[in-house]
Amino acid sequence: MPHTTRRAALRATLRQRELDALLVTNLLNVRYLTGFTGSNAALLVPADPDADAVFCTDGRYRTQAEAQVPDLERVVDRLCDTVLLTRVGGAARIGYESHHVTVDRLDALAGALAGAAPSAELVRASGLVEEQRLVKDDAEVEALRMACAAADRALAGLVEHGGLRPGRTEREIARELEGRMLDHGAAGPSFESIVAAGAHSAVPHHRPTDAVVKAGDLVKLDFGALVDGYHSDMTRTLVVGRAADWQRELYELVAASQEAGRAALAVGARVGDVDAAARGVIERAGYGEQFPHGLGHGVGLEIHEAPALSKAGAGTLLPGMAVTVEPGVYLAGRGGVRIEDTLVVRAGAPELLTLTTKELVVV
Amino acid sequence: MPHTTRRAALRATLRQRELDALLVTNLLNVRYLTGFTGSNAALLVPADPDADAVFCTDGRYRTQAEAQVPDLERVVDRLCDTVLLTRVGGAARIGYESHHVTVDRLDALAGALAGAAPSAELVRASGLVEEQRLVKDDAEVEALRMACAAADRALAGLVEHGGLRPGRTEREIARELEGRMLDHGAAGPSFESIVAAGAHSAVPHHRPTDAVVKAGDLVKLDFGALVDGYHSDMTRTLVVGRAADWQRELYELVAASQEAGRAALAVGARVGDVDAAARGVIERAGYGEQFPHGLGHGVGLEIHEAPALSKAGAGTLLPGMAVTVEPGVYLAGRGGVRIEDTLVVRAGAPELLTLTTKELVVV
Repeated sequence: MPHTTRRAALRATLRQRELDALLVTNLLNVRYLTGFTGSNAALLVPADPDADAVFCTDGRYRTQAEAQVPDLERVVDRLCDTVLLTRVGGAARIGYESHHVTVDRLDALAGALAGAAPSAELVRASGLVEEQRLVKDDAEVEALRMACAAADRALAGLVEHGGLRPGRTEREIARELEGRMLDHGAAGPSFESIVAAGAHSAVPHHRPTDAVVKAGDLVKLDFGALVDGYHSDMTRTLVVGRAADWQRELYELVAASQEAGRAALAVGARVGDVDAAARGVIERAGYGEQFPHGLGHGVGLEIHEAPALSKAGAGTLLPGMAVTVEPGVYLAGRGGVRIEDTLVVRAGAPELLTLTTKELVVV
Repeated sequence: MPHTTRRAALRATLRQRELDALLVTNLLNVRYLTGFTGSNAALLVPADPDADAVFCTDGRYRTQAEAQVPDLERVVDRLCDTVLLTRVGGAARIGYESHHVTVDRLDALAGALAGAAPSAELVRASGLVEEQRLVKDDAEVEALRMACAAADRALAGLVEHGGLRPGRTEREIARELEGRMLDHGAAGPSFESIVAAGAHSAVPHHRPTDAVVKAGDLVKLDFGALVDGYHSDMTRTLVVGRAADWQRELYELVAASQEAGRAALAVGARVGDVDAAARGVIERAGYGEQFPHGLGHGVGLEIHEAPALSKAGAGTLLPGMAVTVEPGVYLAGRGGVRIEDTLVVRAGAPELLTLTTKELVVV
């Protein structure tokens, strides 16, 4: 059971930090540690390796919790965070997720703990589970792999069936792409799909409109599938009809940058250096100003999570980190190209999860 | 412009609270006050009626912000909350959203403010914009009306085209329902649709599976459409083939409870009394234990927002509040019925936004 293993690793961290328990209130962290997918829950994880965690959700999810969290004691209450603190006794040091708990909610936690265990204390414990989530275990990589495959297959089907023909609207294309991801096992899109045709492709985060695809357009598709809570993320930019020279040149530039970024994804590499490896290709071509965002980001239970691959990003790459590499160059009023993969950092070369070709596709 | 009016109302609140400005970091509140729909933004709203708010988002949204927030000064930066605080001078009292700002983030805000204006102070200001959002203005009710209409039309189309025939899976039905909402102008579903057939209908928050609809099943559909950021929410429970007596009785009981709840939705009513009016009908029939959730909740920019219509809920109803009324009775292993409308509290009778019949529909 990956959840048991994950909780055991967290307990070891708690002992290192001299915490007696961690109150987990970030729902994604609760899901990571238990498998529970409902919208209200909390988890109290003791450091003691012989005690197990106590889970709480509300009455709406009683049956679901029995199925998803059969191995833990389950409390049913609406105010899970404070109720779990009433389980604490003695002079315990209880960590709470200070990056997630609001200023107001901390008051409620402090009140509940004071009532239950006056000599216990709440201790800031920021990002402990997120730090563990940085490195994906096998079950997580498998979910990401399935999510990336659903996106690959959806795009292949879209192109094969003429989904990008002139006259279709961005909105129609987005909807077909999302429908095809569902056909291939996705629970849904992993974020609002970007379909940007012609000059719209120069807007990094364009939302699909009723604008129609025309012959000669660049069409930028940035989309992903959600499988078992894990998010894939891929961008491909295609040309409709016949590619103009400037489009081919722009495409080759971004493809070269993306390749340099992937090549820099090595265990131990500093994230800022990975960004610089890809950015340098674009800057040397004189388009540095037209690449206004970071190179990539971690993906997993969130579509954007640590590590950030950007100039300002801190830290180094570890094996098992799942990240995107997505340089782009955007020429306002003309068009833009972005190429993005989801990959897992490995000793040796990174593992590519998005398998759609990065050759320029003309449809 | 509704956003100008909303900001003016907020400024009046700030003056009452003796705040010089409010730093708005809850993205939904930023959207409510400006119309901006991106995923990173903040807003500094001065109390002074002659000064206007300053908006911030990051470089990805520069073009979008120009289009959506043309009337305000726009700062472009990634760390919007702290950057906006550098605009503060003097001995100002700056409110922050303490129900939204995390314990860790408050440190960053305090640091930024100390650097910019050492004699200024950060003051807790919890829920000021949410309180304003409790009462919907005309533009908001119009968006909710369109969202409810998209859901009504989707369900009508589903039923009319045999979408609930035996042999179809819950997942297929959910997907068709969601597709039909898109056809009728929704940007997407307002939450993960619940389609629960047969015994699954007894699970209040069931997720669609590959289970197939069979003749004689209750089928519970709880779904909604998202239009302009506003969420509709409706539940209908139908019977496939022929309704058994116990199903009709259960249905009539829940319908009577739902009607009693709607009748109690009066301006000035205490929310606990509205819950009690509907719950009493079910309790008197001996099914109190089988109605394990609150009667309803506010809807708007969030699918669940204040006020909660529940036993423990506090406060009274005001004209313009948009709420759901959704009693349910769930018989484990057999089936359940829930009936839910979205309504707006008005002087006189509430305004019903979900117009699908509440007669028992047998398909």
